[in-house]
Amino acid sequence: VAVSGGADSVALLLGLNELARTGKLDLQVVVAHLNHKLRGAASDADARWVASLAESLGLPAIVRSSNVRQRAKKSGDNLEQSARHARYGFLEKVAKSHQATLILTAHTMNDQAETVLINLIRGSGSAGLGGMVPLRPLNASGEVTLARPLLSWATRQDTESYCRDQMNECRVDEMNFDLSFTRVRVRNELIPLLESFNASIVETLSRTAEVLQEDDTALDTAASRLLQIAAAGRPAGDHLQSDLLLVVPVALRRRALRLWLGRCRGNLRRLEQAHILSIERLLASTKSGRAIELPGGASVFRKDGMLHYRPNRAA
Amino acid sequence: VAVSGGADSVALLLGLNELARTGKLDLQVVVAHLNHKLRGAASDADARWVASLAESLGLPAIVRSSNVRQRAKKSGDNLEQSARHARYGFLEKVAKSHQATLILTAHTMNDQAETVLINLIRGSGSAGLGGMVPLRPLNASGEVTLARPLLSWATRQDTESYCRDQMNECRVDEMNFDLSFTRVRVRNELIPLLESFNASIVETLSRTAEVLQEDDTALDTAASRLLQIAAAGRPAGDHLQSDLLLVVPVALRRRALRLWLGRCRGNLRRLEQAHILSIERLLASTKSGRAIELPGGASVFRKDGMLHYRPNRAA
Repeated sequence: VAVSGGADSVALLLGLNELARTGKLDLQVVVAHLNHKLRGAASDADARWVASLAESLGLPAIVRSSNVRQRAKKSGDNLEQSARHARYGFLEKVAKSHQATLILTAHTMNDQAETVLINLIRGSGSAGLGGMVPLRPLNASGEVTLARPLLSWATRQDTESYCRDQMNECRVDEMNFDLSFTRVRVRNELIPLLESFNASIVETLSRTAEVLQEDDTALDTAASRLLQIAAAGRPAGDHLQSDLLLVVPVALRRRALRLWLGRCRGNLRRLEQAHILSIERLLASTKSGRAIELPGGASVFRKDGMLHYRPNRAA
Repeated sequence: VAVSGGADSVALLLGLNELARTGKLDLQVVVAHLNHKLRGAASDADARWVASLAESLGLPAIVRSSNVRQRAKKSGDNLEQSARHARYGFLEKVAKSHQATLILTAHTMNDQAETVLINLIRGSGSAGLGGMVPLRPLNASGEVTLARPLLSWATRQDTESYCRDQMNECRVDEMNFDLSFTRVRVRNELIPLLESFNASIVETLSRTAEVLQEDDTALDTAASRLLQIAAAGRPAGDHLQSDLLLVVPVALRRRALRLWLGRCRGNLRRLEQAHILSIERLLASTKSGRAIELPGGASVFRKDGMLHYRPNRAA
């Protein structure tokens, strides 16, 4: 359990501990805390506080520190990104060293609503509007799963009340100090304005995220199946039947093309919507011989009713 | 062309007239203006102004009035809804009496962004987040199509600049005065705050709406096809194969159930997400004999691997 010392993660820890103690959940809890060193002595005090909370509950605690400010300077990331990278790297290490299969974080509906709004502002498309997922594999091997058990039902306020009911104190969440400027403004300006329209906006956005995640999953499933059919008999998958791609709804075609390019190239780096739209026009075009150049030097062309992927030969 | 006299609709009218005059579009333009009588003498002056603009362009104009405030009182709708009903009823009549197949309205990307945000605040799900569609049949017979040619590319500011470039004046849009309180606040408070995060938020939200509309279309197409398969050989469509519904992604299952109930009942009135979720649990349940009551007295039950719809016998 990732525990910062703030109300969200302390509530998660106390709740899990209660469920484990009363035999309602069969699990072994390990507390993990990364000191981000962003607030000097106060950060160190948080780390000590989490360690003593774990001790008072009779749970093992792993507490480490990372100079996030220095990391951010080196990598060019903002503080929030840099803190996240450091934290997830640390959590994965702790999970592996304890043979843990689950890492639990205390993201609430409030965090979800903020993420949805940040992605709406960025224009990040339907996948981004779905926000954070409640469960995902932390790495490619799938050994460790990241779970957010509070995401779909608990608000920040719920965790604060729970902490108050269970004990006398908890820390001010250190995370609040290394949030990006955008997230701080979404939390302190945008959400309050939206609450003046709809007092349950946090719950509403969280439900919307769930529905959009379900839509996204259904479309990805269909796009994946479409690719399978369009590549029939060609296990390499570098040709696709172009007529099949033309008759499906546009959302499905674009998803299938994106998925296909991701598989052919190994990643989606620097691939933009404009490339997908160019390939779509190539599909519908009556001229032949044209090729669409992709970032990195690979290209896509149409020949004999098939769409072909040609890797960068120089690479 | 629906012309209020504001910059949006005047720009649309002038642009269409220019395209028709220079032979780039083959169409006959009829100007339609409904005086909503919301601002006394100023409303009447707008109506006269639109009539004289049409006359100066050599175009026929149909100008009528409707006491929207009185209509709203009678129907219990708010002013914006009431004005919209009156306006679309009027536009449809004008279209029919002139054998017009298209009604054009001047909704811009700004109107689209506002609609997306209003629906986000309401929590109206993925269809609502797609906002207004650029084309839709105005009525069940499909004789008249409503088209919004500016929706995907022109901002309110673009229409204002175009009007300035083309002539000396246009009217302050009467529509601004009968907007709902929510829309006024979205326009005057929420959009400016969002612009402080992303100066192109109007364009961003408009693109997002397009992507979500495409997703929605793809999912509806798939749900409709799923229903067809699940009802195979039973043209009445009041039984569905339940195992088929269980193996598809949840978004598809819920859409298919909603579509099915809409067809069986003739409408979706008073049908809530909770009813869809109950039917979903019925599908997955191992018990038999349970039935889900729907508003209005019809019910859904499972028997012999099929989901059955039973109409209200009393009705």
